[in-house]
Amino acid sequence: MDAYNSITFVAKFIYIEIMNKPLILITNDDGISAPGIRFLIRIMRDIADVVVVAPEGPQSAMSHAITIKVPLHYKVIEQSDSYKEYSLNGTPVDCVKFALHQLMERKPDLVVSGINHGSNASINIIYSGTMAAATEAAMGGITGIGFSILDYANDANFEYAEKYIRKIVNQVLEKGFFDNTALNVNFPKYEGKEYKGLKVCKQAKAYWKEDFDERFDPRDGKPYYWLKGTFNVLEEDKQTDEWALKNNYVSLVPIQFDFTAYQRINELKHWEELC
Amino acid sequence: MDAYNSITFVAKFIYIEIMNKPLILITNDDGISAPGIRFLIRIMRDIADVVVVAPEGPQSAMSHAITIKVPLHYKVIEQSDSYKEYSLNGTPVDCVKFALHQLMERKPDLVVSGINHGSNASINIIYSGTMAAATEAAMGGITGIGFSILDYANDANFEYAEKYIRKIVNQVLEKGFFDNTALNVNFPKYEGKEYKGLKVCKQAKAYWKEDFDERFDPRDGKPYYWLKGTFNVLEEDKQTDEWALKNNYVSLVPIQFDFTAYQRINELKHWEELC
Repeated sequence: MDAYNSITFVAKFIYIEIMNKPLILITNDDGISAPGIRFLIRIMRDIADVVVVAPEGPQSAMSHAITIKVPLHYKVIEQSDSYKEYSLNGTPVDCVKFALHQLMERKPDLVVSGINHGSNASINIIYSGTMAAATEAAMGGITGIGFSILDYANDANFEYAEKYIRKIVNQVLEKGFFDNTALNVNFPKYEGKEYKGLKVCKQAKAYWKEDFDERFDPRDGKPYYWLKGTFNVLEEDKQTDEWALKNNYVSLVPIQFDFTAYQRINELKHWEELC
Repeated sequence: MDAYNSITFVAKFIYIEIMNKPLILITNDDGISAPGIRFLIRIMRDIADVVVVAPEGPQSAMSHAITIKVPLHYKVIEQSDSYKEYSLNGTPVDCVKFALHQLMERKPDLVVSGINHGSNASINIIYSGTMAAATEAAMGGITGIGFSILDYANDANFEYAEKYIRKIVNQVLEKGFFDNTALNVNFPKYEGKEYKGLKVCKQAKAYWKEDFDERFDPRDGKPYYWLKGTFNVLEEDKQTDEWALKNNYVSLVPIQFDFTAYQRINELKHWEELC
């Protein structure tokens, strides 16, 4: 390699390092020490510069909640040029807002959330802090991806999810066109058989049949209640995420945040005359 | 009136009273003592038997969060044949679930939520506990209506909202066909001019430009942060709720809870080959 080529090579290397290294923000709702986010951090550090801003403790089922009653404070866990990690006393959506508008010096190329311990397929998305973080990113013009696995165990096997995570993240980083869209990716519980592939799906119709577990306080005998319930899928459609997951496929649903029921607008229009 | 007619009349009266009196569940996110819910309770008691299950304190910006880390307990505030009122140490969505599955003997004909102090138009709906309660009802097959007024003041003027609330509620009770749909109704702040009418709208595209107010703890000098921000509407479309409200109309947006971005599915389908 002659001098000119050496200089070109070094310049190219510096250019790639400085200018082209993508920047990824990572958060979750199970809290900063959950195995799912630790797994995701390891993979993302191979691909990009990484900033982690995650809840200091579990924030499951917090949906799109934001913290307005108490102030936020963060802790620095690690800080280097290519990797920064912070915990926050807030919800997953707080983490995204605080990262984007307070902690990060530039807008990330991608926000990833998870890996959530438990399904966010079908209607579960509405309760999910993991997916709310991804959606909040999309609302701010950055692609957000939420990853979840249908396994609550602390030692859930994420190993077979890795190649899908890498391919999906690389696709988004290459294309970068998912403004205003989040991606909801769910992995079946690994039960000894490799996943069959990826299915691009719609959200299945389903509902939770609720039940409350009544117990009595040993001090005063007063009742208290824990929410429990059973999940009921209402359609067998092969286009749905629930079908894909049941059949050992990885499901991917593109997500938007316009809640308007457009098909209802016309039938309601005559109400304008009533009032 | 002869004996036969008298009996018919009395029987009809009893029938209407027992069988036909609608049952309405009321909740909110500002808490059970907020002026908005007290106003709504007064109106609904004219129309129906009423059960109130509302958060014991403010639960604004709780979105669709549910309580899973601590157990729920409720307090009985009032109990008569036609009116029951309870407070709950939970979110608005908890209130709906707990009412429907634990406290109420029969399914209500309608769930109303509010009147929220502050706008739930446009993208504000995603953070709103008021609208999450209405949506949770719709997910359970019951029409849910969220009412909000663009006035944070404790003495907000609800007077001009009343006729709209009555007409909308009566429409739903008469038709009863809004399974899987919630209604997002917003009232402009009353500024001396009667509302121009009702507009059936779509959700306006908008975003919050976030900002964090940094302060320092007087004890240890460490920083803490309050979320603040400015709201930016991205379209001037006359079909949107933001346009209606700006022009002194009451806005009504029908709401659904399938988050699938259908228009994105086709462009993502080829990803199935990549993995």
